[in-house]
Amino acid sequence: MIIYKNKGLLQSIWHFHTGPTAKALMGRLVVVAIYVTIVTVAEMHYTDLRLKDTPSSFLGAMGILLSLLLIFRTNTAYDRFYEGRQAWGVLVNNCRNLAIYFNAVLPEGDARSREFYAKAIANFPFALKNHLRDSNNTAELDIVEEGERRDLSHFDHKPAGVSNQLWVKTENLYREGHISESQHINLNQYLTTLMDVCGVCERIKSTPIPFSYMLFIKLFIMLYVTLLPFTVVTAFGYLTIPAVVLTSYILVGLEMIGEEIEEPFGLERNDLPLNQLSQLIRVNVHDILQIYLPHVEKQAAKPGFTIVT
Amino acid sequence: MIIYKNKGLLQSIWHFHTGPTAKALMGRLVVVAIYVTIVTVAEMHYTDLRLKDTPSSFLGAMGILLSLLLIFRTNTAYDRFYEGRQAWGVLVNNCRNLAIYFNAVLPEGDARSREFYAKAIANFPFALKNHLRDSNNTAELDIVEEGERRDLSHFDHKPAGVSNQLWVKTENLYREGHISESQHINLNQYLTTLMDVCGVCERIKSTPIPFSYMLFIKLFIMLYVTLLPFTVVTAFGYLTIPAVVLTSYILVGLEMIGEEIEEPFGLERNDLPLNQLSQLIRVNVHDILQIYLPHVEKQAAKPGFTIVT
Amino acid sequence: MIIYKNKGLLQSIWHFHTGPTAKALMGRLVVVAIYVTIVTVAEMHYTDLRLKDTPSSFLGAMGILLSLLLIFRTNTAYDRFYEGRQAWGVLVNNCRNLAIYFNAVLPEGDARSREFYAKAIANFPFALKNHLRDSNNTAELDIVEEGERRDLSHFDHKPAGVSNQLWVKTENLYREGHISESQHINLNQYLTTLMDVCGVCERIKSTPIPFSYMLFIKLFIMLYVTLLPFTVVTAFGYLTIPAVVLTSYILVGLEMIGEEIEEPFGLERNDLPLNQLSQLIRVNVHDILQIYLPHVEKQAAKPGFTIVT
Amino acid sequence: MIIYKNKGLLQSIWHFHTGPTAKALMGRLVVVAIYVTIVTVAEMHYTDLRLKDTPSSFLGAMGILLSLLLIFRTNTAYDRFYEGRQAWGVLVNNCRNLAIYFNAVLPEGDARSREFYAKAIANFPFALKNHLRDSNNTAELDIVEEGERRDLSHFDHKPAGVSNQLWVKTENLYREGHISESQHINLNQYLTTLMDVCGVCERIKSTPIPFSYMLFIKLFIMLYVTLLPFTVVTAFGYLTIPAVVLTSYILVGLEMIGEEIEEPFGLERNDLPLNQLSQLIRVNVHDILQIYLPHVEKQAAKPGFTIVT
Amino acid sequence: MIIYKNKGLLQSIWHFHTGPTAKALMGRLVVVAIYVTIVTVAEMHYTDLRLKDTPSSFLGAMGILLSLLLIFRTNTAYDRFYEGRQAWGVLVNNCRNLAIYFNAVLPEGDARSREFYAKAIANFPFALKNHLRDSNNTAELDIVEEGERRDLSHFDHKPAGVSNQLWVKTENLYREGHISESQHINLNQYLTTLMDVCGVCERIKSTPIPFSYMLFIKLFIMLYVTLLPFTVVTAFGYLTIPAVVLTSYILVGLEMIGEEIEEPFGLERNDLPLNQLSQLIRVNVHDILQIYLPHVEKQAAKPGFTIVT
Repeated sequence: MIIYKNKGLLQSIWHFHTGPTAKALMGRLVVVAIYVTIVTVAEMHYTDLRLKDTPSSFLGAMGILLSLLLIFRTNTAYDRFYEGRQAWGVLVNNCRNLAIYFNAVLPEGDARSREFYAKAIANFPFALKNHLRDSNNTAELDIVEEGERRDLSHFDHKPAGVSNQLWVKTENLYREGHISESQHINLNQYLTTLMDVCGVCERIKSTPIPFSYMLFIKLFIMLYVTLLPFTVVTAFGYLTIPAVVLTSYILVGLEMIGEEIEEPFGLERNDLPLNQLSQLIRVNVHDILQIYLPHVEKQAAKPGFTIVT
Repeated sequence: MIIYKNKGLLQSIWHFHTGPTAKALMGRLVVVAIYVTIVTVAEMHYTDLRLKDTPSSFLGAMGILLSLLLIFRTNTAYDRFYEGRQAWGVLVNNCRNLAIYFNAVLPEGDARSREFYAKAIANFPFALKNHLRDSNNTAELDIVEEGERRDLSHFDHKPAGVSNQLWVKTENLYREGHISESQHINLNQYLTTLMDVCGVCERIKSTPIPFSYMLFIKLFIMLYVTLLPFTVVTAFGYLTIPAVVLTSYILVGLEMIGEEIEEPFGLERNDLPLNQLSQLIRVNVHDILQIYLPHVEKQAAKPGFTIVT
Repeated sequence: MIIYKNKGLLQSIWHFHTGPTAKALMGRLVVVAIYVTIVTVAEMHYTDLRLKDTPSSFLGAMGILLSLLLIFRTNTAYDRFYEGRQAWGVLVNNCRNLAIYFNAVLPEGDARSREFYAKAIANFPFALKNHLRDSNNTAELDIVEEGERRDLSHFDHKPAGVSNQLWVKTENLYREGHISESQHINLNQYLTTLMDVCGVCERIKSTPIPFSYMLFIKLFIMLYVTLLPFTVVTAFGYLTIPAVVLTSYILVGLEMIGEEIEEPFGLERNDLPLNQLSQLIRVNVHDILQIYLPHVEKQAAKPGFTIVT
Repeated sequence: MIIYKNKGLLQSIWHFHTGPTAKALMGRLVVVAIYVTIVTVAEMHYTDLRLKDTPSSFLGAMGILLSLLLIFRTNTAYDRFYEGRQAWGVLVNNCRNLAIYFNAVLPEGDARSREFYAKAIANFPFALKNHLRDSNNTAELDIVEEGERRDLSHFDHKPAGVSNQLWVKTENLYREGHISESQHINLNQYLTTLMDVCGVCERIKSTPIPFSYMLFIKLFIMLYVTLLPFTVVTAFGYLTIPAVVLTSYILVGLEMIGEEIEEPFGLERNDLPLNQLSQLIRVNVHDILQIYLPHVEKQAAKPGFTIVT
Repeated sequence: MIIYKNKGLLQSIWHFHTGPTAKALMGRLVVVAIYVTIVTVAEMHYTDLRLKDTPSSFLGAMGILLSLLLIFRTNTAYDRFYEGRQAWGVLVNNCRNLAIYFNAVLPEGDARSREFYAKAIANFPFALKNHLRDSNNTAELDIVEEGERRDLSHFDHKPAGVSNQLWVKTENLYREGHISESQHINLNQYLTTLMDVCGVCERIKSTPIPFSYMLFIKLFIMLYVTLLPFTVVTAFGYLTIPAVVLTSYILVGLEMIGEEIEEPFGLERNDLPLNQLSQLIRVNVHDILQIYLPHVEKQAAKPGFTIVT
């Protein structure tokens, strides 16, 4: 994610234009520029397709429908971005509430359980982050008690593995009488929420906008840009070229930003800073349960740079 | 569902255009093409209906209202698609949470109950999928303990039958003291959610957009396409024919995609991959409860093909 | 409700146009037709109001605002329709979950309680349906134990009466020890939801769109249709008459459909099939609790006809 | 609130136009009429500001942005109106559920507690209504047991006082063993909801649309209406005057209705019938708990008049 | 926040225009004014770029897309503003419900616990307010029992510290038997909600609209304003200058209000009155738990001034 509030705007723009989405956009604009140059030269020197007489009401109605479709696209993409951000916000809340609750429930002296929970709760966001980024890497996860890390290797689904560790430990404490009936009921909702967040993120990742709409909007833009030069060439002359390229920049750019935003768990320029959020959870959870955490980890949780992953 | 991210776009387009919706669309465009050809020839050679002088503000306002209605249609259809996807996302979460919870609650040695839950939980999505696709087929359901499969045959409503098996077994464990008061309360919400998902899907399936709106939008498009050639024929000449066909493609196509998307539980090209999601739940639940599952089933849960049902 | 999926579209259209909304619409279009004929003849033969020179940008902006208002109207009406449908969907879910839960909780042999719950749960949707349709008729309600039906006559608010019967019986079972603490807590949410659904439906019924908006939209449409013939008469000549009538059909029709849809509990063509949903709940609940139900009732729960109430 | 379904529409319109919002609207239209008359006469007889040549695309785009802003305004106002109505709907539900629950839980013979709850529950909506209408009047509240009414005088916040009475009484019953553990847990959510509804209503009341947007929309309308006569005077002549006044009626009227609707707890023509809803809750609660209520109070709960407060 | 209901509108406008957002807006309008003056003079006296012949349908479609994007921007900004307000509304509710609950649950004589809860609950909104405004200041927080304030200094995250104090105290009361099982379960949801509100506010603060959209909208406005003078200069002459400046005021102003509104926790003119809401919670909580609070604090909770922080 590009952090732009109170930062140099120019630096942010520079970073933005070096990303892969920006590069793909440039590629398409070059194609449009070549096409419109050919059309303009041909229309002005050789032929006349009569399309320049297109009644304005007809083209206008098409332009409005295209605009509305692009805003529909923008809205759905933004909703997914926001839903993903909300899911991670719920995760931050929930991990903190879990830590606060265990801090209040566990006996002062039970340092071993405290450390277990500080580490295991903080492991969940890292496991989820890697799961969403298609990585099975568990190097960022803290080892919780001897042998437990090996346990995770049994699970194909790492977040489910971490959630499992938390449940098994909690049920053991309950069976041993360290957690009362009411505390057990209270804990349930926090532990359930972990996997609920995981499910929401998986859903956002695996279900983009339906194929039909994606294809339909792309075809519609292509059609509009193809017809545009014919309708303005008489009025604009050689200014047709920059006008059509600028229009394409707006239409194609809006569509491509939507495509990038709607799956916000990757490493693209606009994606969510999952690394930083995971670090933040780790710092908060250790802070609340009063378990020592090296200073270098606390630094990483602060969004001090322009680009955060 | 067509999987198009990171796949060949052209292949996806090809698959899309062989679907029944695409074919129905082609049929309607042929009708439009014939109509517009007749009108164009008639207007240019024989008569003049004066409609070409339609003031642009009048036709423009109608075009805008039609565009807004089509976007309203698109929004409601997409909302149902998304609501259906969310319901299945909740089902995935809930089945995993049920498995994690029973894994933590059931004694290590109680292999029989573990196997019952692994199979019965995984049966629910398959029963729901077939129920939504109007099939009573129970071949995909695993047999849970001798005689229980026969039980399902008593139920007209198979998902209710599976839910019933889960409840009866759980209440038995509770009455026998294997599940404590607080565990019993915690389990309740997971078991309830199964039938809630079923209800949401049934609702989406049985209540399309109200008949009045469906009919109204169809009539409005028909009216617009009927009048369109008269208003552009003077300016476009024979180019009227492709212009009107393209416009019809956009208007009719958008309406038909909406119709297809709004009931996302079928086997159409844009429908949800219920088969794959059910397999995914089966794999995850067995993974969590550590019950052996043949490798071939794990493969089927991966969306490795362009078209997934 | 008109069932139109996979049915003859023409038959559905025929049924639609015989409904009272369609008839009221026809009445208004006749008034518009008379008015526009008078204006057209007067303008063409006698006078000239200069309104035909209305700048297109001015009329266009008004047309867009009117379109946006109509879509706002359509959205709010549809949201109420959908909210009403969702409430009944929740009712279906909840009644089934109640039945499944009592089936698992009640002892196998307690046939009397089983029958009580099968009948009392199934009575709730019928009581709610009649309440929403302003009827106090209790003929469709099954008699639950001797004397209980008489009880309902004490209640002005029949759904509250049925809910009351369920609560009293459940609290009795709890006090007699047939329901444990945790089962009692679990049951609470199901029983509460019954009256929540009732409240949502009552709210939708008693609060239409605020009077100001309703009046404002009607006046705006009237104004637009009144001015329209003057602005197109020069260009269209006698074609003004069908053009204005068609435009009125679209504007007035959209507004009237909104009015009909926003209160979806009546017996109009687009209203929800409350009868069928109530029958469906009765069939499902008896199916789950394994109480015999005559075959004729099962039939009525299937949406086998074009028009369902 | 004006009740207009199945009532004389003309009577409703009359009532509407005697309200303060309608009067303020008339005042502004008179100002517009004077302004536009001066401009029209000046333009036609003395000078020419060239503004009549404003390109239609420029004014059109501004008109569309203004239309979209007005619909944004309408949407947010309506959402608040609807959120306020939903809150009161939840209150109706919740009070009925509380009554049904206490009816089932309290012993048949405990007439004193029954009467306490019938009166105290019914007091809450009245206390909330007066709180929202900035009145400290407690005359409509029933006296609950000797001395308790005096208690309310200690509270600045009357609804919190009533909620407090309910909680204290319930905790006493619990401590004395009349309410079991599970009944106590079940009751919690009903009692919490009372103050939640209060909080939602207070929020809607105290936070109108942000000042910037309110001011921005007003300035935009003023600008549009100021420029409008110049752009149509050549085409319309003296018809400019009614045209601009009508347009102002639409723009200003829509904005003023939004302002009135967004705070729906007052005594304006479009506000919610809080008096009637409070009476309805009182009647229902007494009906359910079988406490006698004079017939005159039942009458007041029926929306039998055109204007209901 | 500017309080404008029933206050002098002119005074509100004056306050508004002295804020930093208004000043930044003025700065940009000066730049636009200089640019458009140069263009107008150059076009009228020296050259002719033919852009004045831009077909209206082309510029109109761009204007509509820009309008829709600005409304999308406005909607998302307003949604965040409203979500922030809702979060604080939930906080008000929740603190009151906590106070009401402890008032009913704590023994009459336990003045020490009552005072602890009155102070600790009221500390939470102040801690949250300062946290959101990037301040670590704890001067506004009441000292709760000897030594507890020191405790807060251990926490980097002050709201988590206050929440922690509440949990630890509550768990102690529970362990000592002053709070029963069911009371403990009931309390859980209130205490959890405190940190949930904190998380929602942090999320709104740390995630503005994605960088791509922010940049895209700014570039689009710049492009539109740059091209605008060329298209109207022929028609308007020197009136081009005020026309373009006014248009810029509307476009740039709408975008800047969105930017200001979307992070509503600061001290800007449109931000939420967190100080006043915190004071209101303190007054209400002390009122309910009947702990003495100096009169001066009660005054501060009333929104009696035009500008409230």
